[in-house]
Amino acid sequence: MNDKSKENGSEKMSTPKILILGAGYGGLMTAVRLQKQLNYNEAEITLVNKHDYHYFTTWLHEPAAGTKDPDQCRVEIVDLLDTSKVKFVKGTVTEIKREEKQVLLQSGESLTYDYLVIGLGSEPETFGIQGLKEHAFSIRSINSVREIREHIEYCFAKYKMEKRPELLTFIVGGAGFTGIEFVGELSDRVPELCKEFDVDPSVVKIYNIEAAPTVLPGFDPELVNYAMEVLSRKGVTFKISTPIKECTPEGVVLADGEEINSTTVVWTGGVRGNAIIENAGFETMRGRVKVDPYLHAPGHEDVFIVGDGALIINEETDRPYPPTAQIAIQQGENLAQNLTALIRGGELKPFVPALKGTVASLGKGEAIGLVGDKKIFGSTAALMKKVIDNRSLYMLGGLSLVLKKVKL
Amino acid sequence: MNDKSKENGSEKMSTPKILILGAGYGGLMTAVRLQKQLNYNEAEITLVNKHDYHYFTTWLHEPAAGTKDPDQCRVEIVDLLDTSKVKFVKGTVTEIKREEKQVLLQSGESLTYDYLVIGLGSEPETFGIQGLKEHAFSIRSINSVREIREHIEYCFAKYKMEKRPELLTFIVGGAGFTGIEFVGELSDRVPELCKEFDVDPSVVKIYNIEAAPTVLPGFDPELVNYAMEVLSRKGVTFKISTPIKECTPEGVVLADGEEINSTTVVWTGGVRGNAIIENAGFETMRGRVKVDPYLHAPGHEDVFIVGDGALIINEETDRPYPPTAQIAIQQGENLAQNLTALIRGGELKPFVPALKGTVASLGKGEAIGLVGDKKIFGSTAALMKKVIDNRSLYMLGGLSLVLKKVKL
Repeated sequence: MNDKSKENGSEKMSTPKILILGAGYGGLMTAVRLQKQLNYNEAEITLVNKHDYHYFTTWLHEPAAGTKDPDQCRVEIVDLLDTSKVKFVKGTVTEIKREEKQVLLQSGESLTYDYLVIGLGSEPETFGIQGLKEHAFSIRSINSVREIREHIEYCFAKYKMEKRPELLTFIVGGAGFTGIEFVGELSDRVPELCKEFDVDPSVVKIYNIEAAPTVLPGFDPELVNYAMEVLSRKGVTFKISTPIKECTPEGVVLADGEEINSTTVVWTGGVRGNAIIENAGFETMRGRVKVDPYLHAPGHEDVFIVGDGALIINEETDRPYPPTAQIAIQQGENLAQNLTALIRGGELKPFVPALKGTVASLGKGEAIGLVGDKKIFGSTAALMKKVIDNRSLYMLGGLSLVLKKVKL
Repeated sequence: MNDKSKENGSEKMSTPKILILGAGYGGLMTAVRLQKQLNYNEAEITLVNKHDYHYFTTWLHEPAAGTKDPDQCRVEIVDLLDTSKVKFVKGTVTEIKREEKQVLLQSGESLTYDYLVIGLGSEPETFGIQGLKEHAFSIRSINSVREIREHIEYCFAKYKMEKRPELLTFIVGGAGFTGIEFVGELSDRVPELCKEFDVDPSVVKIYNIEAAPTVLPGFDPELVNYAMEVLSRKGVTFKISTPIKECTPEGVVLADGEEINSTTVVWTGGVRGNAIIENAGFETMRGRVKVDPYLHAPGHEDVFIVGDGALIINEETDRPYPPTAQIAIQQGENLAQNLTALIRGGELKPFVPALKGTVASLGKGEAIGLVGDKKIFGSTAALMKKVIDNRSLYMLGGLSLVLKKVKL
């Protein structure tokens, strides 16, 4: 409660509390837009995040392969905030109590809200494949990708002592966006690692295994073919239409019975919404909430969901939009506008995704993509990928963030 | 056989074959001195080594801790050889057949000799401690120290995901020269690793465990106290008079029953001669052959042993000289001279070690040592350590090697 409300007596409502959970693309964008749009004392805004930094999720395949320093893929959250308008709390959310309008943190602290923004991201979806959770890595945070990078380097060093080929057999499960981008980076890194550790490159194997009948499902076949050709040339072996049946400490067992020994299995096969949303009692499909046009959790005028936790159907295809940074950022922009309208009184605007294009990197200097209806390939696409990555930086942190982290 | 011997008929002996096994300090020094002293066609000299590089064994605690690039601790062997005088064979010795004057390599190749120089180094001595061979690392080659370095970094990365304290508990078994120098480097590296991996330094534990009642057994107590004080201040916990009873996948069990959980146990507790010497039927003590004053294996005028495989008693103390680079280099000098005398006809000179001093590094800017009778400490000792290391470079490879690898 601020002083003004006390002076003016009980007629005046206390300053509304906006609580934002998660500083991913969606949550962070909501916060930085709100701090621009609202004046001091129009709202008490709190942003909660597990780490004191925001990381660029769409770049994580690079530090995972070791082609980029993880520190180049993150930024201190307070560097992006006007802390006189947005309070930052470093903490891990453990529970959302809808009835009490309360959020509990691991530290024991509890926070209350008038408006709740849930941007808690996703977790790996294992589709019930046995052993995946225990034995596979996943690309999902700075900590997780540092572990993958160090594990890969350790495997090279260990190979020189033990000469077991499974130490240099790398299995990437899933040939969607993340899987493809990761094998692209990894195949770029392998020659460097071979040089560093005196390893004969012919010993190293990279498998990309996909259950669907194609890599990059949903992409244009011409783009798919180009991607497979580039990556095969770089040394990636594809196994498509090949579900993984089980992941073990020794490697993977495929549905067709083949076993591939590997000490490094990276699962990129899919994500689901953060379990906290489900546990809070919201209705979900694979952990994601089918939000209304204003990003409300259905039936909850005070709860909004952005990013990977929000499910929105693309009317044209009748399928959900994939969880992307592009959409999360747009949701943050829309939601900040709507929260401002709610506080000041005004019309809410429905969220309409504006798809500007999709580009998948295939490693250094190579990419494929669709910009509008135009297919792009090779160096043009690689350049466009950088433009897109740098644009996200600009959206989140303006020119100063671009200058710090720009991709050249 | 060379052409000249054919021309001169059977009276003339064929060119003597000198076969040097191992390009460590002893073997390499023998080779580089021989190529200086002998003319073309006086001998067929062959140097066999497992790797195509020589590494600076006495520096290995640094790349093991990650404070120095392993590539800075090795040099291509052919860069040090006059290949018109010394033939280099990259190969792993599997057997020495004394009767047949033959040496077998892993490749299946066999080599013959008139004079054999064995400089095959040492292997870890586990003193029968259970599990040490299976679960502990040891500092003994470029490959082994790269594995240790990568393992340590992987443990830091993994800790951020799993938060198990044993991932950041490092146990160094043995507080002799190598153990002390390694914990010195490791304690220097820890703050860097904590920064890189966002780890609270107070979580990291370094234990140095020694069965003897003191660290650096045989050193002056004043130097020992100084070393312990410096290293304790850097965060090393010493457990002296504490034998390790067993090493397990979980860590170590000490003789007093204490168990310390750790994913990283590095054993520096001692070395023994390479088993190939023993297997060849030479009489050994802990794998080392008590050589005569001319470095002969007793009873074998054609077999010489240099470096860690040679046991020489210090008459003053009635104890064996420790296996050091200093002595190995001096043995190489002596042996090259004697081999030249054997070929040209001349007097053999007995080997007399000239101990110039011993300095143990305690990490950046800190060391202790004895130069002559003078005790030295701190930055003076650290400087002396560099002088000694650079002097070895000069002995082995002249100014050009010093320029490439110099320690500043």
